[in-house]
Amino acid sequence: MGAARRRFPNAPEPFLDLSTGINPTPYPLNALSPACFTRLPEPDGLAELAEAAMRRYGAPSPAHVVCAPGTQILLPAVARLVPPGRATVLSPTYAEHARAAELAGHAVTEVPSFAELHGSDLAVAVNPNNPDGRLVPRIRLIDLGAALARRGGLLLVDEAFMDVATLSESVAADVDRGAIVVLRSFGKFHGLPGIRLGFAIASPGTAAALRAALGPWAVSGPALAIGKAALCDDAWARQMRSDLAYAAVRLDGMLEDAGLEVLGGTALFRLARSDYALRWYERLGQCGILVRCFPDRPALLRFGLPRDEAGYQRLGTALALGPVD
Amino acid sequence: MGAARRRFPNAPEPFLDLSTGINPTPYPLNALSPACFTRLPEPDGLAELAEAAMRRYGAPSPAHVVCAPGTQILLPAVARLVPPGRATVLSPTYAEHARAAELAGHAVTEVPSFAELHGSDLAVAVNPNNPDGRLVPRIRLIDLGAALARRGGLLLVDEAFMDVATLSESVAADVDRGAIVVLRSFGKFHGLPGIRLGFAIASPGTAAALRAALGPWAVSGPALAIGKAALCDDAWARQMRSDLAYAAVRLDGMLEDAGLEVLGGTALFRLARSDYALRWYERLGQCGILVRCFPDRPALLRFGLPRDEAGYQRLGTALALGPVD
Repeated sequence: MGAARRRFPNAPEPFLDLSTGINPTPYPLNALSPACFTRLPEPDGLAELAEAAMRRYGAPSPAHVVCAPGTQILLPAVARLVPPGRATVLSPTYAEHARAAELAGHAVTEVPSFAELHGSDLAVAVNPNNPDGRLVPRIRLIDLGAALARRGGLLLVDEAFMDVATLSESVAADVDRGAIVVLRSFGKFHGLPGIRLGFAIASPGTAAALRAALGPWAVSGPALAIGKAALCDDAWARQMRSDLAYAAVRLDGMLEDAGLEVLGGTALFRLARSDYALRWYERLGQCGILVRCFPDRPALLRFGLPRDEAGYQRLGTALALGPVD
Repeated sequence: MGAARRRFPNAPEPFLDLSTGINPTPYPLNALSPACFTRLPEPDGLAELAEAAMRRYGAPSPAHVVCAPGTQILLPAVARLVPPGRATVLSPTYAEHARAAELAGHAVTEVPSFAELHGSDLAVAVNPNNPDGRLVPRIRLIDLGAALARRGGLLLVDEAFMDVATLSESVAADVDRGAIVVLRSFGKFHGLPGIRLGFAIASPGTAAALRAALGPWAVSGPALAIGKAALCDDAWARQMRSDLAYAAVRLDGMLEDAGLEVLGGTALFRLARSDYALRWYERLGQCGILVRCFPDRPALLRFGLPRDEAGYQRLGTALALGPVD
């Protein structure tokens, strides 16, 4: 929020941060055992975490699961699984995929259509996509993964927001059907991005290579304890999916009432279009509400979900003022 | 401890774990703000952590400091800073250095003398060394770093245990005088390895390359908050260095009274030799005390420090029994 404060120095504090796609209702934090901090994470604990992730995400086995301190740090490691070549990223999407592929030595092309992912050495699809929520059907991803496997390529499917999408479109169970690596983020859906926890799901040989790149003790003790508890709590996840879906519908209604056109997104963020998007960005900022803008697509704004009733009221009040003149 | 329990199923619980080189008296944990967990770490917070690490470790500037989720995950990234070539590791030492250099594509040679580090593409020295405590004088490391720089090579100095050694032998201030990367571990000296925090210190260009490899948000919110507080607490560090030095002397006396020969180490672990080392290992394990043995050097044992008076008493009682027959 430091940058927001500098950009809108007169805004009322605290800021209402709607600039992320992170669940504002975190998984409940219980007291952590001091041993989480004072001891190195144990291999047994890591195995239990992989088992919990396997069940939650539908991976074929724990040997298919790589536990990591967030998925971000895995991006270059995944890109390095194939020799430097031609990488394609289904775009527009999360910008770090192109950066990581370049870091690994690939020549990166951002492609607008799924068909253009074919024939590359590394293909990347965020599914559902950020920011527009576009969902590629599972069967098309499996076909692409199989085709890339035949030529020594690799398909990376970033399912960072799959927890709030149509779960049956996840390819987490299908990684052995082609050269497919799936990434699952823990922090976004569980509202705990600060603990840094994420997973790769891949065939056991590929998973072992990723584990070797991370080395032992990649996941912190607090992340291990919290992640294990949360991933085993399916009742919380079911209720949260339902709550978030309801919240997204409510947010859509507010945005449309204010004259913004909702283009899509996921239940954790909504993408809206307006000819006055930059003026809306200013208005919201002046009211201490931070949303995401896109410098190269100035008509778009992305809205995360308010945490509570006060947040909705504050957003509603700002929207009622209209965009700045 | 899962492996220890399987190895010594009849040992009294809880185990006294002296198998690590981790300070048994951790930096005091205060309550963490929920925002550490529920928000992504902020760039401003990371800048403050780098500043605190700069001051504590004596780096030339914050731009020379890379914050990481432990130093382990940095090893392949550092090894990748030079093209695949010939790597030398001053040995015997921490085994992960050779593994990481191999992972980065180097042909690795473990060399017994410092002089043999010259002429390699990547040279690795742990200083002070684990497990024997051998300390290479700072001036020799600077000379080597300068020589390697002239031929496009790199010197990695792992100062994981420098906090408890002669601080003036650190080369953290000297990284611009040659191609030198210094690693500093947070968790060992501060007794908090579970949070996963460590640092690389390198010239600003090299530091930027390492930061790019980690990506944003590599350090967790809890690690950031705890690390910043602890690294600014110089009074705690001073007192702890003195306490640990005293503890090491006490441990040496106990080991020598039991007939073990203390070869060296650091104030966080002591390396001892005995013709009966394996039988000592058995005895200690049966008493629920876990120490470090070395399969390829069966006469050596490494002892970490007991946490408290009860721990010293328990170790003393076990040592009084003598090695198993």
